[in-house]
Amino acid sequence: MKEKGLLIVLSGPSGVGKGTVRKAIFSHEDTNFEYSISMTTRKPREGEVDGVDYFFKSRDEFEALIKQDKLLEYAEYVGNYYGTPIDYVKETLNSGKDVFLEIEVQGAKQVREKFPEGLFIFLAPPSLMELQSRIVTRGTESDELINNRMKEARKEIEMMNLYDYVVENDQVEAACDRIKAIVLAEHCKTSRIAPRYKKMLEVE
Amino acid sequence: MKEKGLLIVLSGPSGVGKGTVRKAIFSHEDTNFEYSISMTTRKPREGEVDGVDYFFKSRDEFEALIKQDKLLEYAEYVGNYYGTPIDYVKETLNSGKDVFLEIEVQGAKQVREKFPEGLFIFLAPPSLMELQSRIVTRGTESDELINNRMKEARKEIEMMNLYDYVVENDQVEAACDRIKAIVLAEHCKTSRIAPRYKKMLEVE
Repeated sequence: MKEKGLLIVLSGPSGVGKGTVRKAIFSHEDTNFEYSISMTTRKPREGEVDGVDYFFKSRDEFEALIKQDKLLEYAEYVGNYYGTPIDYVKETLNSGKDVFLEIEVQGAKQVREKFPEGLFIFLAPPSLMELQSRIVTRGTESDELINNRMKEARKEIEMMNLYDYVVENDQVEAACDRIKAIVLAEHCKTSRIAPRYKKMLEVE
Repeated sequence: MKEKGLLIVLSGPSGVGKGTVRKAIFSHEDTNFEYSISMTTRKPREGEVDGVDYFFKSRDEFEALIKQDKLLEYAEYVGNYYGTPIDYVKETLNSGKDVFLEIEVQGAKQVREKFPEGLFIFLAPPSLMELQSRIVTRGTESDELINNRMKEARKEIEMMNLYDYVVENDQVEAACDRIKAIVLAEHCKTSRIAPRYKKMLEVE
């Protein structure tokens, strides 16, 4: 009996370093998840390869896929569509491999609706985590600066609720280690392991 | 605001190697949980130190602690009591440190009742995990042998339900890595992290 793969969704506020963390994780030899290549209507840049960096599609092709519900999530940025093809994700999960998505928070919301069983990881800026000590030493910073940071932090904390885990991106390698630990732990969950054996033994 | 420590409970069928895995974990320099020393009425063996190997107590003292509800779990084996003092566990958790218990399955049941929020890890014998391939290659082993293993496996799988995670003890170091990953992941759970920040910012 083959265990289905995990859908791992890494997201977080823009500028937090999602791409850097994702690239670092995939440079590790001990990770074995598949990266889901995004689809886009943006023109390839010099050196970009179709099927490696992106799946490059025309606007008509992309919109047809939207209509056919063939996208796990999509959004339009600066006049171009970006999205995740659902077939690749489903086939890879069914083959028993974990799929890794690195997407924007709006996309993560859409994925949560279609794949509530996914593993949602919020990459948090270290500034958020440092807020507490900044507040304690408030005297050293202006009230306005603190208030702006608090406002930003409030938004980010509200975003977190959608996610199963929060990983602070204080150092790229430390963030990678936490993400890898989360995936390993998820594979050890009784709710994942026990049913396989129960089925095998026909216990109840 | 200090985060409360995690109560980590490692248990599993007798003979699975709980003690070996626990000792290996505590020999790692990158773990920082506290080992909860058990209390016993058994006489110290040569070289055993009170407060290091065990807290050695008289039968009267132990039974007084039972009456005062001062034990997180306890059991009697071969005429001697063994148990976990609750005060040490509570104080250590409140100080923000994780506490590690390595106990029998009966004890783990008692702890689950008193500390449902604990992190319960079931150490599973590799034989259980190998069953599947043995069944596939059934021709190579007698039916009786298979049936006995199946019966044992059935009991072990039923035990699993109490636990949050199942860790296969195929290799001691691999089991340690999984346990450490589970603890690290648990510290990254949104349900642990978000409330701290919400409280800090007084968001709702």
